[in-house]
Amino acid sequence: MYRSAPTTPQYKATARAGSNIAFIKYWGVADPRLNLPLNNSISMTLGALHSTTTVEWDTAGRLSADQITIDGERAEGKKAERVTQHLDLIRHLAGDRRFRARVVSRNNFPMASGIASSASAFAALTMAACAALNLNYDRTRLSAIARRGSGSASRSLFGGYVEWERGADDASSIARQLFPPDYWTLRDVVAIISTTEKAVSSQSGHMLAMSSPLNAGRIDSLYSALQEVRTALALRDLTRLGPIIEQDALAMHAVMMTSRPSLLYWQPGTLEVLHAVRRWREEDGFPVYFTIDAGPNVHLICEAAFERELLKRLQTLNNVRSVVTSGPGDGAEIIDQHLF
Amino acid sequence: MYRSAPTTPQYKATARAGSNIAFIKYWGVADPRLNLPLNNSISMTLGALHSTTTVEWDTAGRLSADQITIDGERAEGKKAERVTQHLDLIRHLAGDRRFRARVVSRNNFPMASGIASSASAFAALTMAACAALNLNYDRTRLSAIARRGSGSASRSLFGGYVEWERGADDASSIARQLFPPDYWTLRDVVAIISTTEKAVSSQSGHMLAMSSPLNAGRIDSLYSALQEVRTALALRDLTRLGPIIEQDALAMHAVMMTSRPSLLYWQPGTLEVLHAVRRWREEDGFPVYFTIDAGPNVHLICEAAFERELLKRLQTLNNVRSVVTSGPGDGAEIIDQHLF
Repeated sequence: MYRSAPTTPQYKATARAGSNIAFIKYWGVADPRLNLPLNNSISMTLGALHSTTTVEWDTAGRLSADQITIDGERAEGKKAERVTQHLDLIRHLAGDRRFRARVVSRNNFPMASGIASSASAFAALTMAACAALNLNYDRTRLSAIARRGSGSASRSLFGGYVEWERGADDASSIARQLFPPDYWTLRDVVAIISTTEKAVSSQSGHMLAMSSPLNAGRIDSLYSALQEVRTALALRDLTRLGPIIEQDALAMHAVMMTSRPSLLYWQPGTLEVLHAVRRWREEDGFPVYFTIDAGPNVHLICEAAFERELLKRLQTLNNVRSVVTSGPGDGAEIIDQHLF
Repeated sequence: MYRSAPTTPQYKATARAGSNIAFIKYWGVADPRLNLPLNNSISMTLGALHSTTTVEWDTAGRLSADQITIDGERAEGKKAERVTQHLDLIRHLAGDRRFRARVVSRNNFPMASGIASSASAFAALTMAACAALNLNYDRTRLSAIARRGSGSASRSLFGGYVEWERGADDASSIARQLFPPDYWTLRDVVAIISTTEKAVSSQSGHMLAMSSPLNAGRIDSLYSALQEVRTALALRDLTRLGPIIEQDALAMHAVMMTSRPSLLYWQPGTLEVLHAVRRWREEDGFPVYFTIDAGPNVHLICEAAFERELLKRLQTLNNVRSVVTSGPGDGAEIIDQHLF
């Protein structure tokens, strides 16, 4: 189950993990304690957008509390508490609850980009914290641990195209790679609409999914949608993948809008981009499809050959403030480790 | 079942009917031939936005086809065909299929306002056409006939607050008044976002509802939503009515967005108004709620005392091109009848 705690004075490791964009979304929690989701989800791990996290366990007992720094700023309140809770879980796995940690995390994409950092951050945190305690878990096990911190983080343990199995308990709710990054070089071109922080975090939003009368219909429809996404990925067929990912993004937002309270993440600019994408497809068959996470920004999925043209077209829209892009990348990895 | 056809040379009548705004929406057809809906719907008949329609049956046999004029323009193609089909039904009820009709219809709201005219138009057409043939049907029967032309037209036969019973056949799918117009003077303040014609008419959209994985969940949830609306109307309680009508408008658009093909009626300005409404409620409890028909315009529902302030606030928004308002009005009525 676990290894004994280190007795040497200072254990430290640094891990890097990419963010990911879900093609079939995770929305809704079945078990809040274990963070089991209502449904399987499938995503592409993003190579260019990542978090790098160093965890240094204070085995000498100098720290009275975890010390967490994110993008150069000391984390306080809920944000810090969420990290500490995750470290508690890892301390528990290591069989020693006393050690505090110094955590320094940095995202290579601006926080203000509106791109969620919890997936990459909790994947990197999990890998670094475990490595620094010399807990030699495999990616599968690490994905289950990362899940407890942030559901979508479980997928960022693996590279390329990844499915997170809903599972029935802590051990079976795990991620696995469907295809490696170089199997298909899709691009995620993120049209940034707004950079203001969400009024309702996705973490608390997940708890509301079941209050929507539309949620059960979405969940029921996913069995075939997931299969369709796996097949489209296997065939590298964007015209097959695209309609499914658009429908599931719309279905997730439909559940959000009709939950109680109602969550309306879209902004006017969101709709400008959605209409543009559909207009481009109709007008000249331009092969791009959209998906939308729990926020106003629109992720445009296309093949690498069309990215340049897409960027040009996005410049003609009024509400796109900036653009961030990425292809598929590797799973989380240790980039530095010191076991003194 | 029907009365014998008139044998006098010229029968003519003019009827006026108000449009209506649904609080629980009609979306989805259970029986396309009879135009039976998937669910009961509840609306307010709009006094200020109406169609006036004159039907003159050509008993002398001078016309070889129905002659239809809408807002001063001769109707052609699908539009004319839909009216002719409805006249066919009424000819059938009258027991004589030979008579053609001259139909002149006028809306007192601009076509370009984006307000659907089919409800008021088919209610007025039904009442005028039947009266001109001396078919003395009561409103209930007329509502069932109007339904065949346009589902929501069935509700415009009655004034005030109206429920259209889904029904199981042609005779039971009828409207009835819940409360008269003066029971509660709500206002419908329509924020006009766009006046371009819909890419997909609601008539064909209704056929797509069942292709959405979210449709069944919406329909199942309506039993209690309908009851809640009836109660809120009975109590004249807008804080109880408002959240339900917002949720059902969002649920209907959710079904539209996730049907195949996906229907996205909203425009950027639609979201600007939705966010403004919620911001106003949060900031200073301003009591206004939204609903949205199959189009981009937002119907803002408030009590009469708050209309002036609402109009002022709407002027601060960027995407509201114009505003049309109405309170509850009477049901369809004959305003002129000549039986020579």
